[in-house]
Amino acid sequence: MGATGLVGSEITRTLFLRKFPLDRINLFSSGRTPETDAAVPGGRIAIRPFSPAGVRGSDITFLAAGGGFSRKYARAIAAMGGVVIDNSSAFRMDADVPLVVPEVNPRDALGHSGLIANPNCSTIQMVLVLAPLHRRYRLRRAVVSTYQSVSGAGLRAVGELATHSEAALRGETLEPREFPHEIAFNIIPHIDRFDESGWTFEEAKMINETRKILGDDSISVIPTVARVPVFRGHSESVFAEFAEPVDLMEARALLERADGVVVMDDPPRALYPTPIHCAGRDDTFVGRIRLDPDSPRGLLMFIVSDNLRKGAALNAVQIAELFA
Amino acid sequence: MGATGLVGSEITRTLFLRKFPLDRINLFSSGRTPETDAAVPGGRIAIRPFSPAGVRGSDITFLAAGGGFSRKYARAIAAMGGVVIDNSSAFRMDADVPLVVPEVNPRDALGHSGLIANPNCSTIQMVLVLAPLHRRYRLRRAVVSTYQSVSGAGLRAVGELATHSEAALRGETLEPREFPHEIAFNIIPHIDRFDESGWTFEEAKMINETRKILGDDSISVIPTVARVPVFRGHSESVFAEFAEPVDLMEARALLERADGVVVMDDPPRALYPTPIHCAGRDDTFVGRIRLDPDSPRGLLMFIVSDNLRKGAALNAVQIAELFA
Repeated sequence: MGATGLVGSEITRTLFLRKFPLDRINLFSSGRTPETDAAVPGGRIAIRPFSPAGVRGSDITFLAAGGGFSRKYARAIAAMGGVVIDNSSAFRMDADVPLVVPEVNPRDALGHSGLIANPNCSTIQMVLVLAPLHRRYRLRRAVVSTYQSVSGAGLRAVGELATHSEAALRGETLEPREFPHEIAFNIIPHIDRFDESGWTFEEAKMINETRKILGDDSISVIPTVARVPVFRGHSESVFAEFAEPVDLMEARALLERADGVVVMDDPPRALYPTPIHCAGRDDTFVGRIRLDPDSPRGLLMFIVSDNLRKGAALNAVQIAELFA
Repeated sequence: MGATGLVGSEITRTLFLRKFPLDRINLFSSGRTPETDAAVPGGRIAIRPFSPAGVRGSDITFLAAGGGFSRKYARAIAAMGGVVIDNSSAFRMDADVPLVVPEVNPRDALGHSGLIANPNCSTIQMVLVLAPLHRRYRLRRAVVSTYQSVSGAGLRAVGELATHSEAALRGETLEPREFPHEIAFNIIPHIDRFDESGWTFEEAKMINETRKILGDDSISVIPTVARVPVFRGHSESVFAEFAEPVDLMEARALLERADGVVVMDDPPRALYPTPIHCAGRDDTFVGRIRLDPDSPRGLLMFIVSDNLRKGAALNAVQIAELFA
């Protein structure tokens, strides 16, 4: 569901790329978009308007049509018997809904009661890198500043970055529609809505979801999120503090061995992750790994991942693979 | 000196804008550029190739032609009798060279022996905001991630962002020249060279200069710098920890009263600083002011300033005004 969107179309593509054992696949859209189809290996599959009856009998249903849709239908679809993997934030913090990054907490998925939540994109890539370090040194605090691409805001947002950049280069200014301010050649420290304390919901997600996935509510997460004029790939500057002192070589080795993580860190060769290099890749890349100059318990890292793949579609499909 | 560059031309403009008491102004370039001139109120002034004899008799000499030039000539010009205000990093950490942000440590300027250093752009805007908080709560640590515009890398870098963005929007890729990787629609966590421990010189500057300007070597500064596809204006996500607990309302009031600082922080109205809004402005803007959810000693802020004005030319001219 949501097959015409950026994440939904990436889920379809990922299922075929990873040769997910499919007997049959049904693609749905919210119905606001005209009937269309999706290109898949060997042909095209129609994308039909959603109806609850259409998903009856599905073993696995992926929802990627936003929180409003999920709140309305997710529980009802789950009650039909299959497993629902929900990409929205609607149920992530519900006690009976596992929040899963398969490399980190795969066993949590088994405790589902029909519904499994796919975490927020910026949480997934951070947790994937922090988890092996947390197991060894016990994470106490993560201060994180994000550089999030426009694809996290959907197809129209991607279009706005392109058209507004073209306009700006011609010396013209267009009215922002998909963002609260101009996105072309600008930085906007604001993603999702604000709560009454001045935190964005995106920041609250990073705090709550990190604790839930790592299974430790005593971890302090201190995020600042920003939208940047990048099409695809989220970057994060992370300062992590641990209970135990960190050995830099050992920490690198832990990350090199971690599933889904690639260490890309050779400063003399200007090697470190950037969004353009990581877009379209499945792995999460980490570089600029340095010790806090004033404490052996602090570690700095720059983490980049494709927000549509590991940050959304790939992680959802990996959750499904736990059951396939 | 360096009058054809981005910072040099901004110094000339700023001197006239602020009606600096000028008897005479001489503009020089490194000589690599052909003879040209600068538009000033009421006419144009020739920009001549630099010669040491040309600056003899100057009361104040601004150097904005890079570290190599400054290392070669700054001490010699200072020995002629006037005050040299150097925009490069060449002498900033020398014990006999004051490093001055006029709103923060103006008295340090008086201890000069001919040479005063203008701090690094990303240091100036951070220190300007942290200083009034440091005086009240005693700063212990600042974790900072930067979003730095291409104008910090000079005129050719600005051109590269424009031409590479145009190419990318046409689906073409050009070879990076001014940056280690593609800058259009990308994030590059690398500014200036790397040292042997994997820190960039830009990060080392933020650590050392912050301590020197605030006069407290026990402050821990933990920076990660990144170049972003923005033409003008540096942004910084800062997490500051203090010895004393912070009262949020009082901290805001301190910032509202601080010279050169404007609090721009009204989340319900989507009001916070962005580079496009702050470009061409003299003030340094701070928003997204929040307390650490887990400690009253931590404060988060998003700080934006025009890197060519307060980050370079304006601060240099303000130093000169201390003597005028």
